[in-house]
Amino acid sequence: MRLYSMPSSGNSYKVRLLLSLLGRDVPTVDVEYQTDALDSAKAEGRLPFGKAPVLELDDGRLLPESNAILFWLGEGTAFVPADPFQRTQMLSWLFWEQNQHEGTIAVRAALLSYPHRRAQATPDRLAALLEAGHANLQIMEDRLSRRDWLVGDAPSLADICLYAYTHSAGDRGGFDMARFPAIAAWLDRIAALPGHRALTA
Amino acid sequence: MRLYSMPSSGNSYKVRLLLSLLGRDVPTVDVEYQTDALDSAKAEGRLPFGKAPVLELDDGRLLPESNAILFWLGEGTAFVPADPFQRTQMLSWLFWEQNQHEGTIAVRAALLSYPHRRAQATPDRLAALLEAGHANLQIMEDRLSRRDWLVGDAPSLADICLYAYTHSAGDRGGFDMARFPAIAAWLDRIAALPGHRALTA
Ligand SMILES: N[C@@H](CCC(=O)N[C@@H](CS)C(=O)NCC(=O)O)C(=O)O
Ligand SMILES: N[C@@H](CCC(=O)N[C@@H](CS)C(=O)NCC(=O)O)C(=O)O
Repeated sequence: MRLYSMPSSGNSYKVRLLLSLLGRDVPTVDVEYQTDALDSAKAEGRLPFGKAPVLELDDGRLLPESNAILFWLGEGTAFVPADPFQRTQMLSWLFWEQNQHEGTIAVRAALLSYPHRRAQATPDRLAALLEAGHANLQIMEDRLSRRDWLVGDAPSLADICLYAYTHSAGDRGGFDMARFPAIAAWLDRIAALPGHRALTA
Repeated sequence: MRLYSMPSSGNSYKVRLLLSLLGRDVPTVDVEYQTDALDSAKAEGRLPFGKAPVLELDDGRLLPESNAILFWLGEGTAFVPADPFQRTQMLSWLFWEQNQHEGTIAVRAALLSYPHRRAQATPDRLAALLEAGHANLQIMEDRLSRRDWLVGDAPSLADICLYAYTHSAGDRGGFDMARFPAIAAWLDRIAALPGHRALTA
């Protein structure tokens, strides 16, 4: 098994974080933006949707999409609730992350931090993403002010998934995290989990 | 059980289509844009993420996110592969749909067809969405030119999910579907499934 992973990317970081929390060591192929490694991985057909991360199994089968990889690696561990409803609720957060959270919070951070995206970072777009991102963070804040973890009574893939772009939303995305104390406490709880690793570790 | 469903929306249509293919009749609360019904559902806390569809269980528990609802209703039916890898591959398509396909193909259709979105439909934005949407359709075309269904040898939730906004991408979104003959044949296969229903049925 090996992981095609983009060092700077939250989507790839989710998978690296889960592996680290599980104490698993999986060989990684780094495919950063604007490197030959990314071009080669695409040219060799290793990225079915043209994006990282992708998990390659020992028999060569390829699994794209960060949240699907989390599900594959997480099944049978404490990070996937046994209760069918909670498991599906966890999926709701994973889909919401891809549809709402990533498209505002990760995209604003990318526009501000990747040189090749700067041309798209118009003031109107940045303002719209700020407002929509704050609304999404408020949804998380409301949930986390009533409970420690997004689903059930223990950390699940939902927390690992949402942590990736939320923990850097202030520094990289310019979001006003002081408005969200319950998120701040939740970020601290995740950072304190045994085996936690940083984005750039 | 009842379904909060937006009649005009592909995300809600996915769930209505699966229920119809399964021969199940679930009471529906229609929550269309700019109606009191949508405002009430939000005010009463029935839409946890502020969006439809949402499935309400008999005990009042709420499940948001179209693709999570598909998973909940589909588990144990022929539309979810028994093989763990195929089941996860199916999830890859569901996440890709939310992250890439919906944000281009559904969004362009929404900008062109909902009056309250028209102000956002600038020529630049429509052109960018056209190009990105065609690239996403090409990913489906490549896959479907080698096989009848997106995952495995039978229709799965991946096909039902992707059908919703792909079948109207030409008419509502202005995409050039003549470029994608394998998608056209796949759309016909889905429309021929017993129990299929139209978006507006
Ligand atoms: N929905 C995908 C998104 C992955 C994605 O957008 N990856 C970006 C980096 S964050 C990428 O690999 N981009 C390479 C490219 O577009 O050339 C996932 O969650 O895995
Ligand atoms: N990721 C969600 C998206 C749902 C969504 O965007 N629903 C829209 C209609 S397509 C909605 O309910 N909008 C109501 C609103 O924003 O007020 C899903 O797949 O269920």
